Amino acid sequence: MKFSVFLPPQAKNNPVPVVTFLSGLTCTHENCTTKAGAYAAAAREGIAIVAPDTSPRGDHVPDEESSYDFGKGAGFYINATQEPWAQNYRMENYIVDDLNALICSSFPVIRERQGIFGHSMGGHGALTLYLKYPDLYQSVSAFSPIVAPSEVPWGQKAFSGYLGDDIQEWKKHDACALMKTCNHRSGFSSILIDQGLSDQFLEEQLKPHLFKEACEEAGQKLTLRMQDEYDHSYYFIQSFVDDHVTHHAHILASSR
Amino acid sequence: MKFSVFLPPQAKNNPVPVVTFLSGLTCTHENCTTKAGAYAAAAREGIAIVAPDTSPRGDHVPDEESSYDFGKGAGFYINATQEPWAQNYRMENYIVDDLNALICSSFPVIRERQGIFGHSMGGHGALTLYLKYPDLYQSVSAFSPIVAPSEVPWGQKAFSGYLGDDIQEWKKHDACALMKTCNHRSGFSSILIDQGLSDQFLEEQLKPHLFKEACEEAGQKLTLRMQDEYDHSYYFIQSFVDDHVTHHAHILASSR
Repeated sequence: MKFSVFLPPQAKNNPVPVVTFLSGLTCTHENCTTKAGAYAAAAREGIAIVAPDTSPRGDHVPDEESSYDFGKGAGFYINATQEPWAQNYRMENYIVDDLNALICSSFPVIRERQGIFGHSMGGHGALTLYLKYPDLYQSVSAFSPIVAPSEVPWGQKAFSGYLGDDIQEWKKHDACALMKTCNHRSGFSSILIDQGLSDQFLEEQLKPHLFKEACEEAGQKLTLRMQDEYDHSYYFIQSFVDDHVTHHAHILASSR
Repeated sequence: MKFSVFLPPQAKNNPVPVVTFLSGLTCTHENCTTKAGAYAAAAREGIAIVAPDTSPRGDHVPDEESSYDFGKGAGFYINATQEPWAQNYRMENYIVDDLNALICSSFPVIRERQGIFGHSMGGHGALTLYLKYPDLYQSVSAFSPIVAPSEVPWGQKAFSGYLGDDIQEWKKHDACALMKTCNHRSGFSSILIDQGLSDQFLEEQLKPHLFKEACEEAGQKLTLRMQDEYDHSYYFIQSFVDDHVTHHAHILASSR
């Protein structure tokens, strides 16, 4: 598995907080690394940024070659339970266990000060892993996230394939469902989401208003910014990534 | 020939100033477009950015396939006079005539408010075209530019191949030589150059101190920033591109 790590100059003297960026469908570690433009802000704020791959790789990993939104490039940051995916498609464990342990033992980062953010499928990954692993991540943000995978075509295709037909299983990996059911929100930080209003996937796949309603129901503070005329691309990410890096830096500076 | 154009939101109401970014060896229009991260600042400042290719393309264009620094991907923003290059390798005319006319007639930009910047070979292109076409460009800046091509291996290889052996011909396309010989500097704007101190090409190919000396001799104001630990990559460009966009915006806002 390939990943990239950005270390800010502050890391030469002391360990620094670390934020993981999860990319979207069809992406690898390279999209964030080359196109997000997050590193100038990360250097200023003293934040390390880890960019993992989005799915398992290799000639022997099962795939659905005709799909861009299932199989390789569409790991969805969950552990598959269905065959033939269950052996390789364990991206949740990869991100929170394997990769995280490697990062924390190999680089000068503070394990107790971690954030997570992402884009589209990676926004789904960031929100759900934040909600599932409150001891690991103190801050979260997202660009154009899939917030309700159980209720949109991308998520339904992925979850039925990787997890089977039991919708109760899907809800365990659905940011809106998790937000409504978790009982430990009082200690949680504010969530930042940016969404472009000219995003071609906004109406059918993303539906950020569902997450807004879930946050209101749960009493969770959310800043949802609907950005006029922006689309689903990395240009959108580039345009607002500084605010996200600052969001994480502020929370992680005061956490623990 | 492919190129990209970024138009800021301000261009919806009124034509805006336009800055051309020239990329370096092996690049196409895509490097700046996807990796420079200049568009958030350009949107803020109300500046259009044009990213042209670096050399002629096509199956019938002569090339030197074993070289990354000659032929395709290494047009050097000059008009070749030697065979077999003279017919196709006319990047100087392409940038200042053909492409510029197309941009000015097709997009809401102000022909009289133009700047130019670039990286490495494109920094050479930006500085020399600025000095050769004072009526076209009012502002210039560069990242890690080749400032003295007549005196470094990259430039000597390109100029001897495209222009022949007469070193006096080379000097017409050498930023240091042009700076020392031009007699119309009084109306010119300040020049901004960023150079990484960990750039692997700094000592052999770039030699920014030669341009500093030429500017001092000519009475040209130059801000040369030597950036500790930065290399020759687009990460370096990403890190300081906001300052360059602002540099051009300020000059172009007050020019003409």
